[in-house]
Amino acid sequence: MQMPDPNPAILSRKAAVVRRLAEALPEGAVIHAPEEVRAYECDALTAYACPPLAVVLASSTEEVSACLAVCHEEGVPVVPRGAGTSLAGGSLPTADAVVLGVARLNEVLEVSYPDRMIRVQTGITNLAVTGAVEEDGFFYAPDPSSQLACAIAGNIAMNSGGAHCLKYGVTTNNLLGVTVVLMDGTVVEIGGGHMDAPGLDLLGVICGSEGQLGVVTEATLRILPKPEGARPVLIGFDESEIAGQCVSDILKAGILPVAIEFMDHPAIIACEAFAGAGYPDCAALLIVEVEGSDAEIDAQLDRIEEIARRLDPVELRASTSAEESAAIWLGRKSAFGAMGQMGDYICLDGTIPVGELPRVLNGITELTESYGLRVANVFHAGDGNMHPLIIFDANTEGDLEKAEALGADILRLCVEVGGCLTGEHGVGVEKRDLMEVQFDPADLEAQMRVKDVFDPKWLLNPAKVFPLSVSAGRRAA
Amino acid sequence: MQMPDPNPAILSRKAAVVRRLAEALPEGAVIHAPEEVRAYECDALTAYACPPLAVVLASSTEEVSACLAVCHEEGVPVVPRGAGTSLAGGSLPTADAVVLGVARLNEVLEVSYPDRMIRVQTGITNLAVTGAVEEDGFFYAPDPSSQLACAIAGNIAMNSGGAHCLKYGVTTNNLLGVTVVLMDGTVVEIGGGHMDAPGLDLLGVICGSEGQLGVVTEATLRILPKPEGARPVLIGFDESEIAGQCVSDILKAGILPVAIEFMDHPAIIACEAFAGAGYPDCAALLIVEVEGSDAEIDAQLDRIEEIARRLDPVELRASTSAEESAAIWLGRKSAFGAMGQMGDYICLDGTIPVGELPRVLNGITELTESYGLRVANVFHAGDGNMHPLIIFDANTEGDLEKAEALGADILRLCVEVGGCLTGEHGVGVEKRDLMEVQFDPADLEAQMRVKDVFDPKWLLNPAKVFPLSVSAGRRAA
Repeated sequence: MQMPDPNPAILSRKAAVVRRLAEALPEGAVIHAPEEVRAYECDALTAYACPPLAVVLASSTEEVSACLAVCHEEGVPVVPRGAGTSLAGGSLPTADAVVLGVARLNEVLEVSYPDRMIRVQTGITNLAVTGAVEEDGFFYAPDPSSQLACAIAGNIAMNSGGAHCLKYGVTTNNLLGVTVVLMDGTVVEIGGGHMDAPGLDLLGVICGSEGQLGVVTEATLRILPKPEGARPVLIGFDESEIAGQCVSDILKAGILPVAIEFMDHPAIIACEAFAGAGYPDCAALLIVEVEGSDAEIDAQLDRIEEIARRLDPVELRASTSAEESAAIWLGRKSAFGAMGQMGDYICLDGTIPVGELPRVLNGITELTESYGLRVANVFHAGDGNMHPLIIFDANTEGDLEKAEALGADILRLCVEVGGCLTGEHGVGVEKRDLMEVQFDPADLEAQMRVKDVFDPKWLLNPAKVFPLSVSAGRRAA
Repeated sequence: MQMPDPNPAILSRKAAVVRRLAEALPEGAVIHAPEEVRAYECDALTAYACPPLAVVLASSTEEVSACLAVCHEEGVPVVPRGAGTSLAGGSLPTADAVVLGVARLNEVLEVSYPDRMIRVQTGITNLAVTGAVEEDGFFYAPDPSSQLACAIAGNIAMNSGGAHCLKYGVTTNNLLGVTVVLMDGTVVEIGGGHMDAPGLDLLGVICGSEGQLGVVTEATLRILPKPEGARPVLIGFDESEIAGQCVSDILKAGILPVAIEFMDHPAIIACEAFAGAGYPDCAALLIVEVEGSDAEIDAQLDRIEEIARRLDPVELRASTSAEESAAIWLGRKSAFGAMGQMGDYICLDGTIPVGELPRVLNGITELTESYGLRVANVFHAGDGNMHPLIIFDANTEGDLEKAEALGADILRLCVEVGGCLTGEHGVGVEKRDLMEVQFDPADLEAQMRVKDVFDPKWLLNPAKVFPLSVSAGRRAA
């Protein structure tokens, strides 16, 4: 069905912009029929949606540059998009914006094992990067849950993490260089395959800038040798605080597992009902995975078991085979599916100092009870990256708003204990109003001034990250 | 002896600035007697020296802020200084500048093992950071050769590395947060002990900015569990190209040693004459060190030996004890002392893709012969960080200039093969004129615009990093 655009000013504006884009780009690159642009009206934060003015699907850095140059001249905002898997609304369009997708830019350009690097176009999926090198014994470390679908472009925009980031760091720790197109169409190279570089390091500021400074079309990524093997141990406690203590004790002892995952009682019950993984009915479960050679794995698991035993666990089961490992991970890996069966949910993403886990878990319980809602906690405990899942009913009026208010209170608590608003999902539209909880006006002003330098007209993803009231003077009307 | 200042305008200016600084700071913090400021006239690039207007030795973030606020109002340039060990002239003063030293800021503020972090004041030495945590089994990874003396402030300014950075990365990969004082005296917190943070990541742009954006007074650093042990293998080849091939083959096989050091024939001969470490007389030596448990070390050394044997080494000696390890490292660790006995030298610092090692080594030999000079190569081969040492005679007129010209040609070659001007020493004054080899005018303009945002008057370390002709319009006369 043809969807009529309600606003005549936007309609005539649209015709002019689409004409210029079509002149500058090859056939098939510009999408503007209302029923077709609908496919781009939201990302994985599906509570919000808005069809854009038009969509450009670029196939090269030159096409990205051509699109941006036109939009720059016309003063049209641009919303960059990777695979559209953002949980924070990072690629949510506005009605006056062109969505610029990079999914067609999906080639591997170069692999060098001696330099432990791979150069790719950024539309490639996260998992395809590892796919390109795993036969030769290498892998790309950051592993968001959405890695089968999400694009490296989005990983760079949001500085994505994953279960492995306790040991290997997040995207910024694995990114060596980028080709980035600025809003006026200029193509800039930053960093590269070599170690370090002279002059200012603009790579860090690009990574995690949520598409507000430029559109990254190529990236040089660090690849690492695959460890020989990995095995988990499952540890259950009858108090959350003690599980939190166990996480601290393991890290304090100088053991660096590849992942420490935490599930609280509601999450255990839901996962067990869904997947039947044989989890015990207890207050908190840890899955601690270590990697290396068999001997090395055994030695690390022995030390972890010794630490856990001192805390009187109700369950302690180290894997001795691939089958046992799969059984231990089964419940955890079905967590999001299991939660989906409990109702609608919002997945938060705050980080806290690891030592604050017990206090924050208690605080979340208290807050949740005061709202009369339910919450389940499944998260990367090793680096304090919490993902409280707030369960609500989308069909009950006011329930979404209540869940969002609870989410905001939980994130305020994370900031209060010395943590921050986001670990790996980014700010997007979801958390833009909470930025004032984390930063004072001088901090936000300093950050906006950096955007001023890269994008003086504030056309790139302008309505994201900063509270709208704070960025109002800079954005076009 | 009282040194008369030759310039009366600077002299009266000096009196005014010193008076205001003395009012703003406690007794003993402001040094202005000509014979006392002499101690700050140069850093470890001793070929250049210039006594500053005055020196401020701050003991707190507040004092740094007070000093900067006065200089900002008076329009006086400020040259920040850590321990003064820069090989690139990063803290070389100018006659009109105040040197702002942070060496008195040397406290450990906080240690958290569960969060694997330490917070320090930045005047602390690199080695003292590890010293604060090693009894508990942790260490701070970046390890510049000057680590006994150099300050964390300088490590952050130059994004310093060291022999361990093949495995653990350079300073930027181990820095979690900073307290930085801007030129107008504003104190800003960036990053912190928690994983990631929302908003723009300004930490990367601060690290390696060579004191041009702000003065970093506190830093949160990543600490890591100490490996159980480490052992090297010494591998000798009768051709440099084959040694380069061996480095590539080890990394390609997915082995990640903690260090791969390379010495060419002139370096071997000099070190052997100096230290008598029992090195063979061959074209190139590799020292490859691996770490972990004993079993893990044995397994890695076996694989490395297997790779090396295929390339027909003239020497292959794996350490089996602490004594043997010390013997293997003895020559390498005396390299700089040994070179000092051969004559005066300049130590370069370029990085290249590891695969280009043979080509660049050949190129260095050809260039050196064409200048009629001698060069020795001792460097971190694993991450392509080369340190050619150019030997010259400071007492022969024109020899320093010839050595500098050769150095510039060698760094041009590094850029030509896809590498860069500096790995861990920074640009400083030493390489500022070579920045145009690496970057085109648009790149340099973009970098200078970032400095504009942090330091609009260009008062912080203004005569560094950028070619003077390029930054002329921005710097005060």
